[in-house]
Amino acid sequence: MPTIKPFALAVKALVADERGRILAIRRSAESNQFGGNWDLPGGKVDPGESFDAALLREAAEETGLDIALTGVAGAIEYECPTVRLAVLFMEAEARSGQVRLSGEHDDYAWVERSELPEAGFAGQLREFVLDYCRRR
Amino acid sequence: MPTIKPFALAVKALVADERGRILAIRRSAESNQFGGNWDLPGGKVDPGESFDAALLREAAEETGLDIALTGVAGAIEYECPTVRLAVLFMEAEARSGQVRLSGEHDDYAWVERSELPEAGFAGQLREFVLDYCRRR
Repeated sequence: MPTIKPFALAVKALVADERGRILAIRRSAESNQFGGNWDLPGGKVDPGESFDAALLREAAEETGLDIALTGVAGAIEYECPTVRLAVLFMEAEARSGQVRLSGEHDDYAWVERSELPEAGFAGQLREFVLDYCRRR
Repeated sequence: MPTIKPFALAVKALVADERGRILAIRRSAESNQFGGNWDLPGGKVDPGESFDAALLREAAEETGLDIALTGVAGAIEYECPTVRLAVLFMEAEARSGQVRLSGEHDDYAWVERSELPEAGFAGQLREFVLDYCRRR
């Protein structure tokens, strides 16, 4: 039987502003992984942490925004060197308006939903966004 | 601003046997909710519990099976009276063969994947299964 890597949980948010546009953030060139790629706010759930608390924490750290979760958008699997991530995507609303990026990201954009497929997401994230737009 | 119910995480498994058939279990008539409905093994993640440990625990409690998680199948939202569930569906394999149901369920069936759409799932679970079968 092949050795199977353990699963871990990650969460990402489709954060909408008051006009319904979705926040995309770009990883810094010096980011350890995927520098220059467009991403959604989120990250791994810490041990013992609830998924919703983790997502509010990651969104605050990465964007400075206070967000409220409004729905479930879907889930994908993401293969990492030592772990397989189950990535749960949530819909959310920004409760405060001013984006303040951390050093992990160097640009952001509020993207109309109709333009999400061309927003510069790559790989599995792009595939997820395409499927999400098709399902809505 | 409307009051928003908090989210909680639930996990369910598409458990495959060695022939690739998927385990469906039927809620007992005396079950507190959804008596007679066909379901997938799983349940709520306890506070502080990881999603994968929760799913292995629920599968063991409900089916007596030792399962291994093999992939991510998707996610849906499920509205409950006091909470909104984010339900994460995982693909899994049964590591032991004999199903032993708890009092919560009174029947089970190993269903060919091609027959999942007609397996008697109801409501949002049926919709998820239809979408899952379409995507695979």
